Amino acid sequence: MKRFKIAVDVMSGDNPPSILVKGSLDIALENKDFDLILVGNENVISKELDKFRNKTDLSNVSIVHTDEVIKMDETPVRACKSKPNSSVMMAAKLVEEKKADAYVSPGNSGATMTASLMHLRRIPGVKRPAIVTTMPNIFRHTVLIDAGANVDITPECILQFSIMGVIYAEKILKISNPRVGLLSIGNEEGKGNELSIKSFELLKNANINFIGNVEGKNINDGSCDVVVCDGFVGNIVLKVSEGVANFLMKFIKKSVQKNLFRRLASLFFLPVFADLKKKVDPKEYGGALLMGTRGITIISHGNSNSFAIKNAIKFALFCVSNDLNKYIADAFDQHDKSLVE
Amino acid sequence: MKRFKIAVDVMSGDNPPSILVKGSLDIALENKDFDLILVGNENVISKELDKFRNKTDLSNVSIVHTDEVIKMDETPVRACKSKPNSSVMMAAKLVEEKKADAYVSPGNSGATMTASLMHLRRIPGVKRPAIVTTMPNIFRHTVLIDAGANVDITPECILQFSIMGVIYAEKILKISNPRVGLLSIGNEEGKGNELSIKSFELLKNANINFIGNVEGKNINDGSCDVVVCDGFVGNIVLKVSEGVANFLMKFIKKSVQKNLFRRLASLFFLPVFADLKKKVDPKEYGGALLMGTRGITIISHGNSNSFAIKNAIKFALFCVSNDLNKYIADAFDQHDKSLVE
Repeated sequence: MKRFKIAVDVMSGDNPPSILVKGSLDIALENKDFDLILVGNENVISKELDKFRNKTDLSNVSIVHTDEVIKMDETPVRACKSKPNSSVMMAAKLVEEKKADAYVSPGNSGATMTASLMHLRRIPGVKRPAIVTTMPNIFRHTVLIDAGANVDITPECILQFSIMGVIYAEKILKISNPRVGLLSIGNEEGKGNELSIKSFELLKNANINFIGNVEGKNINDGSCDVVVCDGFVGNIVLKVSEGVANFLMKFIKKSVQKNLFRRLASLFFLPVFADLKKKVDPKEYGGALLMGTRGITIISHGNSNSFAIKNAIKFALFCVSNDLNKYIADAFDQHDKSLVE
Repeated sequence: MKRFKIAVDVMSGDNPPSILVKGSLDIALENKDFDLILVGNENVISKELDKFRNKTDLSNVSIVHTDEVIKMDETPVRACKSKPNSSVMMAAKLVEEKKADAYVSPGNSGATMTASLMHLRRIPGVKRPAIVTTMPNIFRHTVLIDAGANVDITPECILQFSIMGVIYAEKILKISNPRVGLLSIGNEEGKGNELSIKSFELLKNANINFIGNVEGKNINDGSCDVVVCDGFVGNIVLKVSEGVANFLMKFIKKSVQKNLFRRLASLFFLPVFADLKKKVDPKEYGGALLMGTRGITIISHGNSNSFAIKNAIKFALFCVSNDLNKYIADAFDQHDKSLVE
């Protein structure tokens, strides 16, 4: 079996490198079958590694040094162009040069996308790489694509996102013949905006299991496996879901504080909330995948902790070991050229 | 004080007229200061009224008879044109003819909007009437406009929605100087799609308390009072919120069933869930308001029960007694004519 190499940008994001290095080592020391490349300031990273060096074998861990970092609030394209040696650009370059198979960054997500577009470029036939993520539903998970990479797109892009979403559902979530729903404002054909109505026409003639329009409430009810939309809507869906879940948990906490009786009851209810957290916490999955470039990019949340980074690396390994990009390349190679070029 | 008249379309929606008449009477018998007009089949309604006739005074309740109904799955414009005597069209006509001040319909929401546009027409200066609704936040409620009336709109419409949203926040929610946020995919200016970026330019120069772009997670966190977006995005936001809340409650219920211990704890937790239901259940508010036409239209959920209809009528009374449309007319009269005409 091929030995995979995963690069991690440990300088970006809201948390200090120590936390990101810790999360990376949590998986690298547990799984010696892959090589971990930590990208960032060598001094800082070495100091963290020293904490483990005497206790364990770090032979599958290496460092690629850089001092430059792109901050969370920098303008992505400008920052990537002016800082070619930033940790995220270096990590993407490692994948470009085949020195790594995938990279993980918890930094500025626009910069991560830009770095991948600049260094990895698109898989032939792919018009626009898209962000894919999963949303919990009562049975398993629903794939959401595009979760934020592309705004103001054409129906052809929506068709391509559907095809990539199906590959994700089949190869990563192991769902056979996944049901694809087009996110709109009513289930009937003809409901929606110009983009969704035109996209409907393409999807119903595509070689996918298209079930028609779905509404926002269908994302979490298990009635479809892949929900496709443009990145403006997808990002809002993702953030609204996060917001509603946070609001409900805060409200419950506040309501629990009302009296001693409720506070006591809540103690017995803790395992239920732990179950829920496990199901909905994005840190359990580690990050979203940028699909459609020649390489695997995991875009982690800016506030990723050790646990999230560990899971993001696991996720990257899962994507590369399932040869995800081969399936995309094949699909777009077989795909009607008039639609993809 | 003026005596208000509220018409209720008791034939539409998922529930039978008996339930809708019951909800209407629940408020009409409690509050004798307004007149209730039940629109629908006279025989059916009379039979329901007979249940109350001997026990109480029904002098503030009247019936306007019609046999026609628009079903939930009919195409709105076609249905309204071919069924001018349908209950929803008759209810709107009562408002047009000043025989009612407002009407409530739990039917096909597209047909309700169409009926209002055909009979009530727009307040001068208003380009597009919009649906306004509220979303709970940890402190009070956030106004969401447009929640589903208009797709593929211009930045000028977004500006008008903001102005109507501010009036709603001030006059209905009693929030002074409400903070307006433009729904987008990042807080910084320049983030978003073509519509949101162009709308930002108009909003920042408008005479409102514009706080810039807000993200999906800000709708429920109390950081702004009015969230403005097009109706495609707004409807998805609304349905996603509904879906996430339903999913979380289902998940908790399922997790509670895992063992007897959790089932017992959940009993003590029931008051917390009751609090939560009160905060998030749309039936507590009764419906959404169509803003921008010459009359008050309350669009209730298709599955509205008696409790929801009762609250919808209360809400209609609150809107008319606060003279909401006068403020809209004034605002658009004073408003820059180049933007509104």
